[in-house]
Amino acid sequence: MVTYAAPLDDIRFLLYDLLDYEGQVAALPGYEEANRELVDAVLEEGARFCQNELLPLNRPGDEAGCRFENGVVRTPDGFKALYDSFCEAGWNGLSLNPDYGGQGLPKTLQFVMTELICSTNLSFGMYPGLTHGACNALEMHGSDDQKRTFLPNMIHGRWSGTMCLTEPHCGTDLGLIRTRAEPMGAAPDGESKYSITGTKIFISAGEHDLSENIVHLVLAKLPDAPEGTKGISLFIVPKFLVKEDGSPGTRNGVACGSIEHKMGIKASSTCVMNFDAAEGYLVGQPHSGMAKMFTMMNVARLDVGIQGLGLAETAYQSAAAYAKERLQGRSLAGPAYPEKAADPIIVHPDVRRNLLTMRALNEGARALALWVAIAVDVAEKHPDAAKRQEADDLVALMTPIIKSFFTDYGFEATNLGMQVYGGHGYIREHGMEQLVRDARIAQIYEGANGIQALDLVGRKLGQNMGRLLRRFFHPVQGYVEAKMTRPELAEFVAPLAKSLSRLQQSTLWIAQQGLKDPEEAGAAAADYLNLFAYTALAYLWTRMAEASLAQQDGDSAAFHEAKLATARFFFQRLLPKSSGHFSAIMAGKAPIMAMKEAAF
Amino acid sequence: MVTYAAPLDDIRFLLYDLLDYEGQVAALPGYEEANRELVDAVLEEGARFCQNELLPLNRPGDEAGCRFENGVVRTPDGFKALYDSFCEAGWNGLSLNPDYGGQGLPKTLQFVMTELICSTNLSFGMYPGLTHGACNALEMHGSDDQKRTFLPNMIHGRWSGTMCLTEPHCGTDLGLIRTRAEPMGAAPDGESKYSITGTKIFISAGEHDLSENIVHLVLAKLPDAPEGTKGISLFIVPKFLVKEDGSPGTRNGVACGSIEHKMGIKASSTCVMNFDAAEGYLVGQPHSGMAKMFTMMNVARLDVGIQGLGLAETAYQSAAAYAKERLQGRSLAGPAYPEKAADPIIVHPDVRRNLLTMRALNEGARALALWVAIAVDVAEKHPDAAKRQEADDLVALMTPIIKSFFTDYGFEATNLGMQVYGGHGYIREHGMEQLVRDARIAQIYEGANGIQALDLVGRKLGQNMGRLLRRFFHPVQGYVEAKMTRPELAEFVAPLAKSLSRLQQSTLWIAQQGLKDPEEAGAAAADYLNLFAYTALAYLWTRMAEASLAQQDGDSAAFHEAKLATARFFFQRLLPKSSGHFSAIMAGKAPIMAMKEAAF
Repeated sequence: MVTYAAPLDDIRFLLYDLLDYEGQVAALPGYEEANRELVDAVLEEGARFCQNELLPLNRPGDEAGCRFENGVVRTPDGFKALYDSFCEAGWNGLSLNPDYGGQGLPKTLQFVMTELICSTNLSFGMYPGLTHGACNALEMHGSDDQKRTFLPNMIHGRWSGTMCLTEPHCGTDLGLIRTRAEPMGAAPDGESKYSITGTKIFISAGEHDLSENIVHLVLAKLPDAPEGTKGISLFIVPKFLVKEDGSPGTRNGVACGSIEHKMGIKASSTCVMNFDAAEGYLVGQPHSGMAKMFTMMNVARLDVGIQGLGLAETAYQSAAAYAKERLQGRSLAGPAYPEKAADPIIVHPDVRRNLLTMRALNEGARALALWVAIAVDVAEKHPDAAKRQEADDLVALMTPIIKSFFTDYGFEATNLGMQVYGGHGYIREHGMEQLVRDARIAQIYEGANGIQALDLVGRKLGQNMGRLLRRFFHPVQGYVEAKMTRPELAEFVAPLAKSLSRLQQSTLWIAQQGLKDPEEAGAAAADYLNLFAYTALAYLWTRMAEASLAQQDGDSAAFHEAKLATARFFFQRLLPKSSGHFSAIMAGKAPIMAMKEAAF
Repeated sequence: MVTYAAPLDDIRFLLYDLLDYEGQVAALPGYEEANRELVDAVLEEGARFCQNELLPLNRPGDEAGCRFENGVVRTPDGFKALYDSFCEAGWNGLSLNPDYGGQGLPKTLQFVMTELICSTNLSFGMYPGLTHGACNALEMHGSDDQKRTFLPNMIHGRWSGTMCLTEPHCGTDLGLIRTRAEPMGAAPDGESKYSITGTKIFISAGEHDLSENIVHLVLAKLPDAPEGTKGISLFIVPKFLVKEDGSPGTRNGVACGSIEHKMGIKASSTCVMNFDAAEGYLVGQPHSGMAKMFTMMNVARLDVGIQGLGLAETAYQSAAAYAKERLQGRSLAGPAYPEKAADPIIVHPDVRRNLLTMRALNEGARALALWVAIAVDVAEKHPDAAKRQEADDLVALMTPIIKSFFTDYGFEATNLGMQVYGGHGYIREHGMEQLVRDARIAQIYEGANGIQALDLVGRKLGQNMGRLLRRFFHPVQGYVEAKMTRPELAEFVAPLAKSLSRLQQSTLWIAQQGLKDPEEAGAAAADYLNLFAYTALAYLWTRMAEASLAQQDGDSAAFHEAKLATARFFFQRLLPKSSGHFSAIMAGKAPIMAMKEAAF
């Protein structure tokens, strides 16, 4: 079995010592009660629930997978009871609107819980995760009537949600979708109904036995729709039509045609959904579906990034425990434990290098995630519109970086964890190879990582004359200038400054080249995103090192000593690797575009 | 399904245009008949066999896996018939001794065939692969009687072989093995017999239904054995004892206890083997088993490296075909195919970047592999002992690099291939995720890649006062000096020279630091191995570019144009990434060793 305990010490350090959760979030209107005491209580209960309830079903869920039987999807044994207690405990609606039954807690807390859930049972977490995204979209874009009808049940978890985008011939390019929506005329209650017909694939949680109804949010085209993405509308299509009394009634014309057999996340159902004149309800205006789907997608992209972190954390903890336990060979410096038949493999520099790589990326990523999480709350609740905009800009800028970088390194980290186990890691019973298989999907779904990089250079970089970029460059530049005279910080600030300057240089290069030739921006995109991510991690690692340097004494001295050791590893052994991204960016598109298509 | 055709054009270019196969190998005594005409015929037949026979059973084999039923292992449907025709066609003994029924062809040809087999059905290839290693060990170390008894059947494939090293508590550290060998007294035929008792795990091809007998080569300890690896002896333990007439007789005391459920290579049986007073025969002298096992292991390590290349080639070809077919979105430069609903995704710089990364690594790795393969033949057959030693040195030096770098990049390449497929790559039916799962084991078995790096810095670097190193540095330095005045080669030679100088610098650093503190060498090992591999690829890419520049006209102009485009991609977009390895090496052990063990 894997080894896992929620990293609450690190999370508390980040929230309270580094990121001023209390001043930034608990001070926001509506979050007055979400003070440190409450947050700690929720986190401890959340950790207990994930460790004791979710984790034990993770490997059995992978072994059993979902089964498709006569149009019905059966989740693995125990999932239904787990889901019920998850909902009853209120985890489903943790950060959702209290007007419809949610707990109304800050999104920052939701980020933390998402990490813990992904660490312990990603497949299970997919079901409430999808519902969560659908609730956000409905809350922002649904009519009052739609909200009253669907939100209370969805926020509780009694009903679940999906997002139905992809079709067999199109995933990234949604302008090509063929699913059609025909007006059925106004119903007596005044709501317009539509008849939805088409096939959607790769629909996570499209069909399952956990909830009594499933509310599909479906992209489709109205008869008069303009070509491409400007002609896409968003519809609510419930599995069971809702009766007058609010309970599920007649079965709607939507059915699961089959489920996919996948590399991983096997306990999460991935469905082909056939819509055959299914009754649907338009959300908002016609042809405005793409923007609304992005409401879900942006939240989902951050969530998917956290999946990488969550799985990598479990991989790290498991590998560290194994490395301290497994006796094999002797330290290169002479026997460390002469009384034992061999030393634990953690004495070997290369094993430590693998562990520290995972740890430095995990702790850096967690700090970045919570920095952005707090901005999500500020963007939503701050009384000052300018502050909201600033925070929203930062979130928009960092979303593709978190999605792509966290899932890439998350996959790498699960593989490093497996490598520490040697041959035992390749065997299913130890659970390490499941982490690898589960982590792999996160680089693909919610926009493959190449698309995230294009989103960053093609959309976010130039948006509002570079306004989004300034939300990162200004504070980091300011921080570097403020700290560069502090000799004890030099080992961190100097490489951060160098990384920032390279990032600025390549930003300028891309802005100039990309204006003339968008393929230049496209050729630079993935390396640029990674250089950006390394610089962001360097910023947060410098701040963490600064905070830990100030706390060398006291009860948590060992914690801060380890933090500093990890910071030094990051700056000396990992950050230098980002220089290759800089060189690749500056090499331009020529070596990529020269090869003739036929020669591939 | 995956797309695959054996890359015979590239292989012929390497053998005949680049590496002078005819002058280097076909000129060796015993290989006179293995001229270009014969080699071409064998390769074409081999390609046909792999594409038509091995490939169609690859995915079904993965789906079915091996089944363990009452001590018997059943391979997937079709494997037995495939194995029989493989043996009948002579592929099993392709490069093995003709005195015992082998084809006696050069090892270079075997390298090529290994790549083709791994590209089309790695799991299947494991069975003859293990036999091949066992035949080598028996031929080098067995008595005449042992050779006569076992080799003809094993070379044919009628009997198969294994290597039994690992035990539950030890893999890397074989000094800890507990399997015991007790002398049973001399038999009437004069051969000493031993009673072998113990448990071995992770035994590939340990039990299966393909061959009529299985010949285990087993590491065990004699009663008077010294401690550690100096007390290990090597034994032959056949599944069925051999009768007077040479046919299999009584069942020996060795049985399969269970098979492992693994992430991949599911059609290859991985067995727990229980030896219970099994009859065994000592190979060579007592306590000399480790060195003999390395005879198998060194060949096996090169083979495992080729596994990475083989799988990466299939991933590349499949992804390239998919990228040319899949219509999605539009070129950033404006519609490339305005008559179609969308452009094929190969128009996107990021897709091309992924494809070219795979291709540049594959073609570079293949060139390096065949350079070393030719050295294997020279080391075995050259009439001049000095030439043999030189070639053997190069093989010894490059073995850990090929094993580790090829399997690491091979895993990365299969993942890049899967990424090009997007969500479809994560679904089992397309076969891409199988390549990823199959590729993953190669980084672990035959010495995990961290061990390979230690072998390089701890053993090969200092061996005979750096003699092995000179077999690489001298020809490369000489080549650089000879070519640096050729302006048309400058774009290749200049970065090669830079990479070589960094490699020399870090070699010196490791030699100096490592003498004082072996942990410094250990901390540098993995990054050093990768820097070495990149430099070796840069050398071979420069030579390939030079050869292709000379052939810009004629029938193969398109081939050479693509070769040059790929070379430029390697030098401009990939090689710069190796600079991060240099920085990491020079950072030393401090950031790795500072963290206290308890803090992990």
